[in-house]
Amino acid sequence: MDSRPIVLVVEDEPLIGLTVQDALGEAGYDVRLISKAVEALHEMESAAQVLSALVTDIRLQDEKDGWEVARRGRELNPTLPVVYMSGDSALDHTSQGVPHSVMVQKPFAAAQIVTAVSTLINKAPPTPPTD
Amino acid sequence: MDSRPIVLVVEDEPLIGLTVQDALGEAGYDVRLISKAVEALHEMESAAQVLSALVTDIRLQDEKDGWEVARRGRELNPTLPVVYMSGDSALDHTSQGVPHSVMVQKPFAAAQIVTAVSTLINKAPPTPPTD
Amino acid sequence: MDSRPIVLVVEDEPLIGLTVQDALGEAGYDVRLISKAVEALHEMESAAQVLSALVTDIRLQDEKDGWEVARRGRELNPTLPVVYMSGDSALDHTSQGVPHSVMVQKPFAAAQIVTAVSTLINKAPPTPPTD
Amino acid sequence: MDSRPIVLVVEDEPLIGLTVQDALGEAGYDVRLISKAVEALHEMESAAQVLSALVTDIRLQDEKDGWEVARRGRELNPTLPVVYMSGDSALDHTSQGVPHSVMVQKPFAAAQIVTAVSTLINKAPPTPPTD
Amino acid sequence: MDSRPIVLVVEDEPLIGLTVQDALGEAGYDVRLISKAVEALHEMESAAQVLSALVTDIRLQDEKDGWEVARRGRELNPTLPVVYMSGDSALDHTSQGVPHSVMVQKPFAAAQIVTAVSTLINKAPPTPPTD
Amino acid sequence: MDSRPIVLVVEDEPLIGLTVQDALGEAGYDVRLISKAVEALHEMESAAQVLSALVTDIRLQDEKDGWEVARRGRELNPTLPVVYMSGDSALDHTSQGVPHSVMVQKPFAAAQIVTAVSTLINKAPPTPPTD
Repeated sequence: MDSRPIVLVVEDEPLIGLTVQDALGEAGYDVRLISKAVEALHEMESAAQVLSALVTDIRLQDEKDGWEVARRGRELNPTLPVVYMSGDSALDHTSQGVPHSVMVQKPFAAAQIVTAVSTLINKAPPTPPTD
Repeated sequence: MDSRPIVLVVEDEPLIGLTVQDALGEAGYDVRLISKAVEALHEMESAAQVLSALVTDIRLQDEKDGWEVARRGRELNPTLPVVYMSGDSALDHTSQGVPHSVMVQKPFAAAQIVTAVSTLINKAPPTPPTD
Repeated sequence: MDSRPIVLVVEDEPLIGLTVQDALGEAGYDVRLISKAVEALHEMESAAQVLSALVTDIRLQDEKDGWEVARRGRELNPTLPVVYMSGDSALDHTSQGVPHSVMVQKPFAAAQIVTAVSTLINKAPPTPPTD
Repeated sequence: MDSRPIVLVVEDEPLIGLTVQDALGEAGYDVRLISKAVEALHEMESAAQVLSALVTDIRLQDEKDGWEVARRGRELNPTLPVVYMSGDSALDHTSQGVPHSVMVQKPFAAAQIVTAVSTLINKAPPTPPTD
Repeated sequence: MDSRPIVLVVEDEPLIGLTVQDALGEAGYDVRLISKAVEALHEMESAAQVLSALVTDIRLQDEKDGWEVARRGRELNPTLPVVYMSGDSALDHTSQGVPHSVMVQKPFAAAQIVTAVSTLINKAPPTPPTD
Repeated sequence: MDSRPIVLVVEDEPLIGLTVQDALGEAGYDVRLISKAVEALHEMESAAQVLSALVTDIRLQDEKDGWEVARRGRELNPTLPVVYMSGDSALDHTSQGVPHSVMVQKPFAAAQIVTAVSTLINKAPPTPPTD
C-alpha cells in the first residue's frame, strides 16, 4: 500500500498528543498532530475529504472547542469518524457530540483511541475511487 | 399501570403532528403535541425529567430549530431518547444531531416513529424510583 | 402460515398481563399468559424449544423470581429472546439479567414490548427444520 | 405528507403476501405486492431509487430466487433495506444474504416484518432531495 | 495523564494471566492480576468504583466462580465493563453472564481481550469528576 | 494456552499479505497466508471448522474472487467471521458481501484488520468442546 489512512489529532496537552500520535502511528495510521482549534479548522477546510478520522480534545486554548471542530468536520465530510477525548467535559457528550461518535474519557489507555478510530473507520461507508 | 410514558412531539405541520400523535397514542404513549420551539423549550425546562422521549421536527416557525430543542433536552436529561423528523434537513443529522438519536426522513410511515421511540426508550438506562 | 410464534408471558398483575397479551396477540403472536413462576418453569421444561420468546415480570408471588425464570429458560434454549418488565427492579438488570436481553421499565407503552420481542426474535439465529 | 414510503414485497404464497401487505399498509407504508421474481427484478430496474425497502421470500416460482432479487436490488440501490422471509432457507442467510439485512423465519408474526422494515429504514442514510 | 485506567484480571492459570497482563499493560492499562475469587471479591468491595473493567476466568480454585465475581462487580458498579475468559464454560454465557458483557473463548489471541476491554470502556457512560 | 486461533488470510499482493500476517501474528493469531483463491477454497474444505476467521482480498489471480471464497466459507461454517480487504471493489460490499462481515477499504492501517477480526471473533457464538 502506497499510503496510510490520515488521522487528524487535535490536542493541546503535549504529553497526551504525543502518546496518541505514537499509538496511532504504530497502529498504521498517518497522524497529523495539531494543538490549536483554528489550525484544525483550517486543515479540515482544505483536506476534510482525505481525512479518515478526527480525534479531538474538547477544551482547547482557542475561542473554538472540540465540539465545534467536530461539527465543522462533519459538515465538510458527513461520514467522518469522530473520537473525542476529555476529562471534565465527557458528560456533555450526549448534548454536544455528533451522532456515531465516541467519547473517550481521560485518563484513557492508548488502545482505547486505536480501537475507537479503527472501529469507526471500519464502519464508515467506502469512498468511491478518485481519478 | 397507572400511567403511561410521556412523549413530547414538536411539529408545526398539523397533519403530520396529528398522524404522529395518533400513532404514538395507539402504541400506548401519552403524547404532548406542541407546535412551537419556544413552548417545547419551556416544557422541557419544567418537565425534562418526566419525559420518556422527544420527537421533533427540525424547521420550526421560531428563532429556534429542532437541533437546539434536542440539545437543550439532553442538557436537562442526558439520556433523553431523541427522534428527529425532517425532509430537507435530514442530511444535516450527522453534523447537527445529538449522539444516539434517530433521524426519520419525511415522508415516513407512522410505524417508523413508533419503532424509533420504542427502541430508544428500551435502550435507555432505567431511572431510579422517586419517592 | 399454519402457526404463529409462541411467546410466554409471566406476569401476576392481571391488568398488565392482559395489556401485554392483547398487544402481542394483535402483533401476530400466540401468547401463553402465566401468573406464577413455578408454572412458567414447568412450561419451559416441557416446551422451551418451541418458545420464540419469554417476557417476564421480576417480582412474582413465588419463591422464584423473573431472574431465575429467564436463566432457566436460557439453560434450556441458549438463544431464547428474553424481555423483562419491572418497576423497582429495573436497576438490577445489569447484575441479574442475562446477556442480550431487554429490560422494559414500568410504566411502559405496549409498543415497547412488541418492539423488544420482535427485534430480539429477528436477531435470533434461525432454527433448523424439524422432521 | 403527500406520499408514503414504498415497500416492494415479493411473495408467491397469497396468504402470507396479503398478511404482510395488510400489516405494512396499516403501519403507514405504500406496498407493492409482486409474486414473481422476474417482475420484481423488472420493477427494481425501473424504480430501485424510489423504493424505501425490499421484503422478499426466498423460494419463488421462477428461475430466480430471493437471494438474487436482493443482490440486484443492492446493485441498483446500495443502501436499500432488505428483509428476507423464509422457512427452510433461513439457515442459508449467513452465506447467501446481503450485509445489514434481516432474515425473518417463517412462521412469523406480522409485527416482525413491520419492525424489521422500520428499523432498517430508520438506519439508512437520508437521501438528498430531488428536484 | 497522571494515571491509567485500572483493569482487574482474575485468572488462576499463571501463563494466561501473565499473557493478558502483558497485553493490557502494553495497551496502556494498569492491571491488577489476582488468582483467587475471594480476593477478587474483596478487591471489588473496596475498589469497584475505581475499576474501569473486570476480566475474569470462570473456573476458579474457590467456592466462587467467575459468574459470581461479575455479578457482584455489577452490583457494586452497575456499568462496570465485564469480559469473561473460558474454554468449556463459554456455552453457559447466555444463561450465566451479565448483560453487555463479552465472552472470549479459550484459546484466544491477546488482542481479543484488549479489543473487548477497550470497546466496552469506550461505550460505558462517563463518570462524573470526583473532588 | 496450547494453541492460538487460526486466521486464514487470502491476499495476492505480497506486501499487503505480509503486513497483515505480521500484525495478526503480533496480536496473538496463528496466520495462514494464501495467495490463490483455489488454495483458499481447498484449505476451507478441509479445515473450515477449525478456522476462527477469514480475511480475504476481493480481486485474486484466479477464476474465483473473494466474494466466492467468503460465501463458500460460510456454507461450510455458518458463523465464520469474515473480513474483506479491497480498494475499488469496496463499494460492492453491500450487494456481494455476506451478512455480519466487515469491509476494510485499502489503503488501511494494520490495526483495522486486527480490530475487525478480534471484534467479530468476540461476537461469534462459542463452539462446543470437541473430544
